Amino acid sequence: MTHNEYHRIAEQLQDYIAQKNNAMIVQLLEGLHAADIAEILDHLDFEQALYVIRILDTDITADVIAELDDDLKEKILERLSAKEIAEEVEELESDEAADILAELPEDKKVEVISHIDDKEHVKDIVELLRYDEDTAGGLMGKEFVKVNKNWNVLRAVAEMRKQAQEMERVHTIYVVDDDDKLEGRLSLKKLLTTSTKTPIKDVYNDNIHYVSVNDSADEVARVMQKYDLFVIPVVDESGKLVGQITIDDVVDYIKEEAEKDYQMAAGISEDVEADDTVFQLMRARLPWLIVALIGGFASVIVLSGFGNAMNRYGTLFFFTPLIAATAGNVGVQSSAIVVQGLANGTLTGSIFKQLVKELTLSLLNGIILAIILLLIGKFLLGHILTGFDLKIAITVAVSLISVIIMASLIGTFVPLFLHKQGIDPAVATGPFITTSNDIFGIYIFFSIAKLILGF
Amino acid sequence: MTHNEYHRIAEQLQDYIAQKNNAMIVQLLEGLHAADIAEILDHLDFEQALYVIRILDTDITADVIAELDDDLKEKILERLSAKEIAEEVEELESDEAADILAELPEDKKVEVISHIDDKEHVKDIVELLRYDEDTAGGLMGKEFVKVNKNWNVLRAVAEMRKQAQEMERVHTIYVVDDDDKLEGRLSLKKLLTTSTKTPIKDVYNDNIHYVSVNDSADEVARVMQKYDLFVIPVVDESGKLVGQITIDDVVDYIKEEAEKDYQMAAGISEDVEADDTVFQLMRARLPWLIVALIGGFASVIVLSGFGNAMNRYGTLFFFTPLIAATAGNVGVQSSAIVVQGLANGTLTGSIFKQLVKELTLSLLNGIILAIILLLIGKFLLGHILTGFDLKIAITVAVSLISVIIMASLIGTFVPLFLHKQGIDPAVATGPFITTSNDIFGIYIFFSIAKLILGF
Repeated sequence: MTHNEYHRIAEQLQDYIAQKNNAMIVQLLEGLHAADIAEILDHLDFEQALYVIRILDTDITADVIAELDDDLKEKILERLSAKEIAEEVEELESDEAADILAELPEDKKVEVISHIDDKEHVKDIVELLRYDEDTAGGLMGKEFVKVNKNWNVLRAVAEMRKQAQEMERVHTIYVVDDDDKLEGRLSLKKLLTTSTKTPIKDVYNDNIHYVSVNDSADEVARVMQKYDLFVIPVVDESGKLVGQITIDDVVDYIKEEAEKDYQMAAGISEDVEADDTVFQLMRARLPWLIVALIGGFASVIVLSGFGNAMNRYGTLFFFTPLIAATAGNVGVQSSAIVVQGLANGTLTGSIFKQLVKELTLSLLNGIILAIILLLIGKFLLGHILTGFDLKIAITVAVSLISVIIMASLIGTFVPLFLHKQGIDPAVATGPFITTSNDIFGIYIFFSIAKLILGF
Repeated sequence: MTHNEYHRIAEQLQDYIAQKNNAMIVQLLEGLHAADIAEILDHLDFEQALYVIRILDTDITADVIAELDDDLKEKILERLSAKEIAEEVEELESDEAADILAELPEDKKVEVISHIDDKEHVKDIVELLRYDEDTAGGLMGKEFVKVNKNWNVLRAVAEMRKQAQEMERVHTIYVVDDDDKLEGRLSLKKLLTTSTKTPIKDVYNDNIHYVSVNDSADEVARVMQKYDLFVIPVVDESGKLVGQITIDDVVDYIKEEAEKDYQMAAGISEDVEADDTVFQLMRARLPWLIVALIGGFASVIVLSGFGNAMNRYGTLFFFTPLIAATAGNVGVQSSAIVVQGLANGTLTGSIFKQLVKELTLSLLNGIILAIILLLIGKFLLGHILTGFDLKIAITVAVSLISVIIMASLIGTFVPLFLHKQGIDPAVATGPFITTSNDIFGIYIFFSIAKLILGF
């Protein structure tokens, strides 16, 4: 569906809601995918969206709520009673049900659970709620198809039919032993091409990738991407098959993480989108700007400390933004490479080795930039800029090289250090690294100038 | 496998290669996943990697080559003969085969194709080579399972067995009419739970998402993520089923795009990784630094134009880095939100509406930051900084607000404008926006100062 279609349906809905024409509302949304309905509701006012949610069939509503934008979902769940939520949750697969329950306050969560009749479902959900959301346990669902390796194909197919009844989609058939320990998988192809009497243990594939409940979501994403997996089984500490993660949940995770890193690098601290309110955007952006402003004051103080140079070497002050900007740019480049390297697992050597590489690189880059600076200085600036003589030019060039080296070492070291401390290295990118490199860059620039020019 | 395991196996391999002990090499890599072997080869020297590729069984080598890092893949393909490449390509599914052929020079491509015996495979590959790599056609493979809606379940299963023989994995069974036009899909669950005599047209599901060959890869990713799809069929202009895209290829695409945007925002213009060589990293980073340096000269010239203020209002020059940094930070924030909004489809309103929102937001942020600046100025800087009086403080505060507004409007407008022109808006983030905002910011600051202070 295109944006225009969403818009058109949303307008139509608003008319029907105003007329309280429930039959037409249901008819209009009939047959649409839950994700599309969720998107349409996002175009309505909150009360209108709630109205629609309440009159739709429960089995659709459950999926629609699961697909809603986080803000709207939270507000809708607040207004729905525990009994209403329980009805929705009953319809959902365990992982989506757990995601919804996880957003409720503790007492409402307990109340909702008490309203769910299917005790097996409750057990699954409660188990899932135990896991941290950024782990394999937090991503997995409890719905999967498993067969015992001691069965034959005929019995396996019969059991699978039973298990598959309750599932939306069957992706992989897992093979377990009598203790429920994961042994392997049975391919659909094998199942289609094997006689019914063959024992499963003769035809299953014991080469299977799996993750443990406590593995991080990053690790799950890495393994699934590396081996091109659509689903991956999850085992507990004893090797028992306890769940399955499907790639769609991992895709959502990958996208969210990428956006978070990108926003952090841009100095945006909360997950916001272009269509959020001014207030939401402000909350995400202002804190970084305040931090950077305070850092900016540090550079003012550093500069004022060298204020006595202004009389004789005022030209130096024209170059401070150039030096500060270069320091910032280099620092962001270095930290971005480290942050991405840590995320991808391509940064495998020691901190020391990476610092040496950065040192070499920044020395080369610094020398080339310094040469360009001297050339521009000689052929262009000399005529325009009064007081820009050879001594000043050399001062700026030497400072540029030093500042580039300093910035790239800070940009490399800080995220590596944070990572070692268990802190997300992405916080070190963006305004943080730019601001600190500004301050150090300016300090180094004027210190070198003082050394060379003597003021 | 962990990094240490890769490293250990690579070392072992190097010994065997030195001894030319081919039997042990084959045994060591036996049973490993192609992706793991590819990673191990990445730890070897090029000649060693080539040696291993040449002695491995063709059916494994093909997948290993497909999984190799781009640089290594390119070099290996250069050294392999057309006949050797043809042998590998025969083993691969059409989309991977086409990806490898796409990297060859035109004459070698033709030569490789002439060596492939399976004419059906050649036809598929040649068709795929026609499509741009960032379209649905470029992502799809020609292997899929389809059944005619006029068959019954028994015949369908028999035909599927035949078709499935040649495929690695069967995900979805497509239903077509007599003209091969896509009609829907047949779920595995239905197939497992329906009697063999039922006609397919009575049990298939006609509610199916699909894309057209010319749809963009972004659109494919959006649709698959939105509807949680693992595979999506691709149709041509006439609605004929021509291919299938699997989510693993889309996951790779999503990750690559996210990394590209992130790197562009950080001023890194080529796809590099932390473990690339100094030269590769330099090529990706130096161009941006040169651009920023030249931009930096513009700020030097702007500042020197206001050089006459230095005698009476030297304090202003202490504040240039603060103003420039704030302009840069605000610009990066704004452009990141626009770039992400465009990518996600959340930026749906008009350019004008987005600019008004940014204007409101930046006015609010600007006023708050200006108040903080005045407070810090009054209670802290007044004592440290000579010449920082009320007039200067007000000048800096007013400039700060103006510069923030200007930076956020530029940061919003430029990527929106580029997008309208069909240029990737991500190029507008990072050093580009920082540098231009530095220059404008400094110009506005001193222009306002000139107005207020009169120099």
